[in-house]
Amino acid sequence: MSFSNPNLITISESICFDGTVGFYKHPSQVCNGEMRFAVYKPPQAKLEAVPVLYFLSGLTCTEENFIIKAGALQYAAEYGLMLVVPDTSPRQTGIPDEDKDWDFGAGAGFYVDATQAPWRSHYQMYSYVTEELPALIAANFPVRSDRQGIFGHSMGGHGALVCALRNPQRYLSVSAFAPISAPMQSAWGQKAFTGYLGENPELWRTYDASELVLSAKYGRPILIDQGMSDRFLNELLPDRFEQACIKAEQPLILRRQTGYDHSYYFISTFIADHMRHHAQALLGG
Amino acid sequence: MSFSNPNLITISESICFDGTVGFYKHPSQVCNGEMRFAVYKPPQAKLEAVPVLYFLSGLTCTEENFIIKAGALQYAAEYGLMLVVPDTSPRQTGIPDEDKDWDFGAGAGFYVDATQAPWRSHYQMYSYVTEELPALIAANFPVRSDRQGIFGHSMGGHGALVCALRNPQRYLSVSAFAPISAPMQSAWGQKAFTGYLGENPELWRTYDASELVLSAKYGRPILIDQGMSDRFLNELLPDRFEQACIKAEQPLILRRQTGYDHSYYFISTFIADHMRHHAQALLGG
Repeated sequence: MSFSNPNLITISESICFDGTVGFYKHPSQVCNGEMRFAVYKPPQAKLEAVPVLYFLSGLTCTEENFIIKAGALQYAAEYGLMLVVPDTSPRQTGIPDEDKDWDFGAGAGFYVDATQAPWRSHYQMYSYVTEELPALIAANFPVRSDRQGIFGHSMGGHGALVCALRNPQRYLSVSAFAPISAPMQSAWGQKAFTGYLGENPELWRTYDASELVLSAKYGRPILIDQGMSDRFLNELLPDRFEQACIKAEQPLILRRQTGYDHSYYFISTFIADHMRHHAQALLGG
Repeated sequence: MSFSNPNLITISESICFDGTVGFYKHPSQVCNGEMRFAVYKPPQAKLEAVPVLYFLSGLTCTEENFIIKAGALQYAAEYGLMLVVPDTSPRQTGIPDEDKDWDFGAGAGFYVDATQAPWRSHYQMYSYVTEELPALIAANFPVRSDRQGIFGHSMGGHGALVCALRNPQRYLSVSAFAPISAPMQSAWGQKAFTGYLGENPELWRTYDASELVLSAKYGRPILIDQGMSDRFLNELLPDRFEQACIKAEQPLILRRQTGYDHSYYFISTFIADHMRHHAQALLGG
């Protein structure tokens, strides 16, 4: 695919930790409409190309939540990592009832390429996140595209695991906060996959981390933090992913954090550890 | 004043950095209606009473903005400081047009005790912040009330400076991000003071940091950070405050930060320095 002439439009930019946090929009080819994303450019990027770390957000979020709430920018500045945060779906596509549900449609793209009408005309978030957006970033920001990592929260944790497990050579590091770890077994996942991918569960496996890990041979350790007071535990099912990792001999650091919930207060508490996890993989070697 | 039986109601609580961030509401006597505030209780408070640091927010903010955006909680947890963040005004008082302006009325209490009708019936933010809220905190949270500090942003930086300069014994430390430093000389200040305090500028002096500092004898160093790309510089007037501090021989650390704007991206960049400034004063000696 070629993504020249991207018509990247800057919405706003501010200095933060001696780098620049910016919000941008552009016409997406794969999503067939305008998409938005945020980038934190660390101070090191003034001098040289830096590794790039993608964060995929959860249900109802936009490209803004993680940037504002997670406390990640200080560590991106410290380590010299470009942070890229896409929106969680196309928006205002004209698809009827796109905004009706909080857990499907707008704000809930689930990082899949939809095959079902009417969603397939715009909801191509897997290709957007793994192909179009990285190409756009490489064309417009000083990044080392051979040094990419990915992480996310909840629906975005699912997305990050899927992207990394399907592209082990492209993502040198992966981690997640409270990911939807076995979406084929959860109500959120079943609803989304039925709507986007159709009713045959056999066609869902390529978007289920607990299925993918069985044959992925990702190899490098996966870091997951899970709050034990998270009220969505029965949608997240970290135990299923842990069992699959054991079966596949995939190294997993699954930390069960007593008392923590599903919020950004949980994420901000452990963000330093995740940023270090990615920095070690992306800056080493 | 007595503030027993405060009917403090917990709206939400989450674990964060091994402490607890909570949102609360209560019937305020001085503001004659419900008020809301946020508290971050650091892990040290499980074992002993800790110093308390108040943050006053800027125009349009609620008690939530600073908690979510500033990245302060990690340092409150590190140093063992209770953080208390009040809302920026009474709300839903029934005063006509209370919500009409973004820079006056709801969300813009300016931390003064209004003397003018109709505002004086509820808008008593100076007494609320310096008396009623600290008493409520002391009655409900494990704090050392003899170890209080205060800081704020923009309108709240003005509020913090005024509270400290009028009560040098009560606030052992003070700092501000982009404070309205000479409100009698700014359009925001003149509008607010006319509305809350009446048209006689002589009666405004007790709420103007650049006037107060001339006779305050605060003594301990004041830390201020000011972004030099802040589009509100002509409302903030840090130079005026600097001149007044020189005249009064008040130690001032005024740091002019090239490129930074008025946002929380600016605040988050320098929050570590401000938390250290307060920790040194509140934990020492």
